[in-house]
Amino acid sequence: MPYGYEDWPRLSLESLRLGRGLNVRSFKVRSISYDFNPTSIVITGMGGSGIVGDVVRDSLQGVNVIVHKDFNIPPWVSRDSLVVAVSYSGETLETICGALEALRRGIPVIGVTTGGRLAHELEAKGAPVVKVPKSIAPRFGLPNLLYAVLGVLSHYVTVPDVNESIEIQGEVLKSQLPIKLANFIKGYVPMIFAPIGLQAVAYRFKNDLNENAKTPAVVAIVPEADHNDIVAIMLKHPVRYIIIKGRTDDIHDYLMNTVEEVVRNYSSDVEVVELKGSSRLTQEVYGSMLLGLVSLKLAELYGIDPVRTDPINTLKDRIRNLSCPG
Amino acid sequence: MPYGYEDWPRLSLESLRLGRGLNVRSFKVRSISYDFNPTSIVITGMGGSGIVGDVVRDSLQGVNVIVHKDFNIPPWVSRDSLVVAVSYSGETLETICGALEALRRGIPVIGVTTGGRLAHELEAKGAPVVKVPKSIAPRFGLPNLLYAVLGVLSHYVTVPDVNESIEIQGEVLKSQLPIKLANFIKGYVPMIFAPIGLQAVAYRFKNDLNENAKTPAVVAIVPEADHNDIVAIMLKHPVRYIIIKGRTDDIHDYLMNTVEEVVRNYSSDVEVVELKGSSRLTQEVYGSMLLGLVSLKLAELYGIDPVRTDPINTLKDRIRNLSCPG
Repeated sequence: MPYGYEDWPRLSLESLRLGRGLNVRSFKVRSISYDFNPTSIVITGMGGSGIVGDVVRDSLQGVNVIVHKDFNIPPWVSRDSLVVAVSYSGETLETICGALEALRRGIPVIGVTTGGRLAHELEAKGAPVVKVPKSIAPRFGLPNLLYAVLGVLSHYVTVPDVNESIEIQGEVLKSQLPIKLANFIKGYVPMIFAPIGLQAVAYRFKNDLNENAKTPAVVAIVPEADHNDIVAIMLKHPVRYIIIKGRTDDIHDYLMNTVEEVVRNYSSDVEVVELKGSSRLTQEVYGSMLLGLVSLKLAELYGIDPVRTDPINTLKDRIRNLSCPG
Repeated sequence: MPYGYEDWPRLSLESLRLGRGLNVRSFKVRSISYDFNPTSIVITGMGGSGIVGDVVRDSLQGVNVIVHKDFNIPPWVSRDSLVVAVSYSGETLETICGALEALRRGIPVIGVTTGGRLAHELEAKGAPVVKVPKSIAPRFGLPNLLYAVLGVLSHYVTVPDVNESIEIQGEVLKSQLPIKLANFIKGYVPMIFAPIGLQAVAYRFKNDLNENAKTPAVVAIVPEADHNDIVAIMLKHPVRYIIIKGRTDDIHDYLMNTVEEVVRNYSSDVEVVELKGSSRLTQEVYGSMLLGLVSLKLAELYGIDPVRTDPINTLKDRIRNLSCPG
């Protein structure tokens, strides 16, 4: 199995240990104390790093996790908040700008990165940084980033039991679904339905389809998609429907069954992905890994290199030397 | 012009007056006083009603507007917040559940609706309700809902000057862009790029494409889309690219120009929509109206009825008699 998927369990454990092992509450940056109980957690990051915020938000139910995928930090974020700045490379301008702005505003910031400018600037100011192992590219480093963030957050909030979510990773590699789903999608635009409580899986799948298989995808989150996207099934389009189902709560599980029934009434181009695991975290890790493999199989079918993402490189080059806005 | 678009200026003014005219700070529900300064504004609603929250969030810069498209209200929303529950029909279960839960938790709620159960239940409890005029369907009632919400919020926060956003509506009807864009999209899945500060235009366009033209669409928000969706242009797909450009701030305007350049490097199937207006509100109203007309033209090209949304009716029937979760 290429692209390091077989290393996920080891990387998950190692990164979790790195996050847990940092005595983050003992840090101080000027007068900013890290020994406090945050009212909200802002996770800032883009692309393969930003998706970590989505998974954490879905996993930490009852905690106000704000996922920020832009420059800066929203103006109403207060000093009672904790900012976690996630950048695989440490060179993401959006995330660096947000982290530095937060510190200027007196908000505690923790960096999670493999190094780069983010690590350098935060460490120079005395702020805590978890340095995670490298992978082939940001999206292949999901376990490295995700479990480091969960580890570091465990100093502040209750984090769900992570064992199941690591154990399940071995199971995914045996699945025959990736080749089946890749063939199903080939030549079409996938339209992915998922419940709001497990939305990170759908966005991660879209991102992996974008980057690995150079394929656009529609994400339709239920219940909102019940009020608009679902109508598109009334006409035939060059799309294929994928319904991601899992266990969230009674009403959303019921809605996902109903969405499946409604879509099947109009089209036979439907595949259902059932997520495994008892927690949202496990289901999202399971789904991210399984559907990531779908995107790699699809790249194989298209005969393209999953690792190359030329347009991103062009865009990154264009903003590299800009100053932070605001 | 069908579907009531020519009535938008009149409906905007009338609904604004209704929202402003309600002396909302004088209300009291049990011990819940409406005379306070909210730390955040939660706008809850789905589909054609929910998009109002997106437009308001983009328009009220510096205000913590939380757009909630689900049942209930997030557990960390406090009594310092104001909830605005928007449901065109007043029968949306998700929104009714959220409004009633908020009141139970001691959070002030204002309803914006044409009537229905939402109006009935809120009024029975003594909560303020703005009753707006009807249109053909929720999405065609955008001015009714949007300006009523802006009017009612003007009692609590600074709302941008609305005159320009109403004046521009007359201009839109003269544009030749709708027929051109509809022909461009026909037979393809539109992939819509937009800057984060004007994201509501892209989501509104997607919703109108879904409901009016029974067409799925991809929404790609910049800068996040620079880190994933943009890679899809490396392969040929059954998609057409639409880039929505406006005036937000220097860095995002620069990024949108760069996105246009990168997309044009790979594909000639690109159209750019330039939003008019000096405020974000005006640009979003302009874009919503213009692109709504595109979706109606597309429905005409497909020979389908824009008003019928059968799958939504099925889904609504299935949840009508459910109890609120939680």
